[in-house]
Amino acid sequence: MIKNRRHTLSVKIGNIFVGRGHPIVIQSMTNTPTENIPATIKQIKELIRAGSEMVRITIKDAKAAEAAIIIIQKLRQQKIPTPMIGDFHYNGHILLQQFPLLAQLLDKYRINPGNVGKGHQREDNFSSIIKIAIKYNKPVRIGVNGGSLDEELFLKLKKKYSKKKNFKDLKSIWHEALIESALQSAQYAEKLGLAQNKIILSVKTSDLQDLITVNEKLAKRCLYPFHLGLTEAGSGVEGISASASALGILLQQGIGDTIRVSLTPQPKVSRAREVEVCRAVVQSLGFRHFSPKVTSCPGCGRTKSDKFISLTENVKFYIKKNMPKWQKKFPGVEKMRVAIMGCIVNGPGESKHADIGISLPGSSDKGEALVFTKGTLLAQIQQKNLKKQFLRLLEKYIKKTFSNEN
Amino acid sequence: MIKNRRHTLSVKIGNIFVGRGHPIVIQSMTNTPTENIPATIKQIKELIRAGSEMVRITIKDAKAAEAAIIIIQKLRQQKIPTPMIGDFHYNGHILLQQFPLLAQLLDKYRINPGNVGKGHQREDNFSSIIKIAIKYNKPVRIGVNGGSLDEELFLKLKKKYSKKKNFKDLKSIWHEALIESALQSAQYAEKLGLAQNKIILSVKTSDLQDLITVNEKLAKRCLYPFHLGLTEAGSGVEGISASASALGILLQQGIGDTIRVSLTPQPKVSRAREVEVCRAVVQSLGFRHFSPKVTSCPGCGRTKSDKFISLTENVKFYIKKNMPKWQKKFPGVEKMRVAIMGCIVNGPGESKHADIGISLPGSSDKGEALVFTKGTLLAQIQQKNLKKQFLRLLEKYIKKTFSNEN
Repeated sequence: MIKNRRHTLSVKIGNIFVGRGHPIVIQSMTNTPTENIPATIKQIKELIRAGSEMVRITIKDAKAAEAAIIIIQKLRQQKIPTPMIGDFHYNGHILLQQFPLLAQLLDKYRINPGNVGKGHQREDNFSSIIKIAIKYNKPVRIGVNGGSLDEELFLKLKKKYSKKKNFKDLKSIWHEALIESALQSAQYAEKLGLAQNKIILSVKTSDLQDLITVNEKLAKRCLYPFHLGLTEAGSGVEGISASASALGILLQQGIGDTIRVSLTPQPKVSRAREVEVCRAVVQSLGFRHFSPKVTSCPGCGRTKSDKFISLTENVKFYIKKNMPKWQKKFPGVEKMRVAIMGCIVNGPGESKHADIGISLPGSSDKGEALVFTKGTLLAQIQQKNLKKQFLRLLEKYIKKTFSNEN
Repeated sequence: MIKNRRHTLSVKIGNIFVGRGHPIVIQSMTNTPTENIPATIKQIKELIRAGSEMVRITIKDAKAAEAAIIIIQKLRQQKIPTPMIGDFHYNGHILLQQFPLLAQLLDKYRINPGNVGKGHQREDNFSSIIKIAIKYNKPVRIGVNGGSLDEELFLKLKKKYSKKKNFKDLKSIWHEALIESALQSAQYAEKLGLAQNKIILSVKTSDLQDLITVNEKLAKRCLYPFHLGLTEAGSGVEGISASASALGILLQQGIGDTIRVSLTPQPKVSRAREVEVCRAVVQSLGFRHFSPKVTSCPGCGRTKSDKFISLTENVKFYIKKNMPKWQKKFPGVEKMRVAIMGCIVNGPGESKHADIGISLPGSSDKGEALVFTKGTLLAQIQQKNLKKQFLRLLEKYIKKTFSNEN
């Protein structure tokens, strides 16, 4: 549980609540062309299987709008209830008017206030979307992005502050413009009649410190729940590390109600990696539990045997494979902590702290490994057939501990 | 720069300073058997090349001690000045006495107060090591680990608190024992004559919230610099995400002076990944700059063309390949921000915020891509030979901006 979770309203999106009192919701976004219906449905299912609790698809033109209708209908026919979010830029007001069925089927509309038009058209287009949201009783996310901030608003604030004595630096004015863009749009939506608990805000930037500053400030100025994410985080280790640091820092302060990780795709890596990172961050913070945690040591010059490495890989694979089944049969199993330790330095200690842990001797492929459950020595097993023996003990422990009959 | 960096002393380790006023130092640890001299030297060099500024090797017996002497001598002969740290458990007092040359060659000794012996031997063994540190003018790290906490101390505190009215929960007592183990050992070392600025502390746990709580509390109770790390973080996306969140949360508060990431090795992944994660965290926080930052978008249904993905991979590879050369020729290049954006939603905006950025049209493989430098349109380039053209512009920009002659 999060001790200091920011006070927010609750917003219902399809069958899910977002906001204080509810778990931090994990979401992701497809990157298949929306008009490619089979590919998009396949990816949506992949993201859901990985743990995405809402899925966003971009709707950029009439073709994508028509496809989105079919996609959502098919998902619902297949009894997949995951809320679907439409991502709109530039022409959302036209598409949502032109395709009322789409407006009805979507569970949330994402509006980027920097991309709804310029000058007088801005208000008109924005209010068109909000009126449709009111008509179909839908929530919206007002999603501001550093890469597409409303330029007019920024220039206005720059002019305003440059006249004042306590002239702020341009960076602070830019932060303020990001915040104002979100707040002014939300207030305007409320003025148009949209209920306060139909609004989620997000302000994303690609720089971590900008993101932290802006969200910390925004958090003090409203009660809307936040969608959180470091945008354009890049790829690979850099993208994962930056996203995890950014989300960790804000979530630990109680800021953030639904999260997305934005990674540049890499060859042979599933889009679902975005979801894996979200889950890993939220679970490592201890705010939610999705799957048993595997504590395993980095090894060093003491661990001459690589057995703890292959055992870690095997156990993680075994857990991943079995979780869909275990979740139904063994409620609570997702909170289980497993330790796989390579040598005696921290091995027995960590193994005793875990629900079930194994401490290998490290120095050779011979010698016995110690298995502990809840701090007590359960077994001493030979390293021959180690994997088979430990997985059997693990399965036995799970059955004994988490069976419904208990 | 870190606004609120915790006030600490400075500790000199070899040719490097750790503590407030100095950059956060990145370190790692080998996992080759120390007695395998060629393999260990090879890995030390790999870690250094990746950015490890100190390297720790485990010294578990006489054979490893003999090997460590040769390893450090060879490194120094090859003019590699990176500080080398010896990791000792159980028999550090014996090995350091037995091998005075080792004691002299090492730049720091790591002592785990949970693993120096029990009962009366504890003090004797610990003081032997400290006396050697004093003799050779070496700093020590007193490194407490949740997996090897001094059990006697924990039981003593448990007994003490259980008698009090405001009985603490066991978890809090465990936290207090981790803190006390570090502080009492440090104070004892000082009493034995070790200078205050020869001590670094660390308290590592495998649970993120334990780590945060303990380090936040410890930070208020002493002036020793901290070595920071989530221990036994696991492998893959989970290990990276948990480590990045944990380090991000503490570093952002100004806590942490040198860091290590502990990942369980994975097949075909270099040990240097630990260093990559450290760098990515510190750079994403904006506290240090190691290599140009590549902001790149996650793509969505709008980015029908995958060109931005391959361009991102190519640019990252190009930067990595050239950085050793660039660092010498183009001081400041490590602070450069490059943006590679797939479509017009945030593309021009992010590209303008970057030092050099490219915004692809996204919708097809045809059409021109816009290249911006410092917010100004530099060129519109055809997508044919995109990589070649953009890398040429990038190289040109670097030469123009970061040449020494400027």
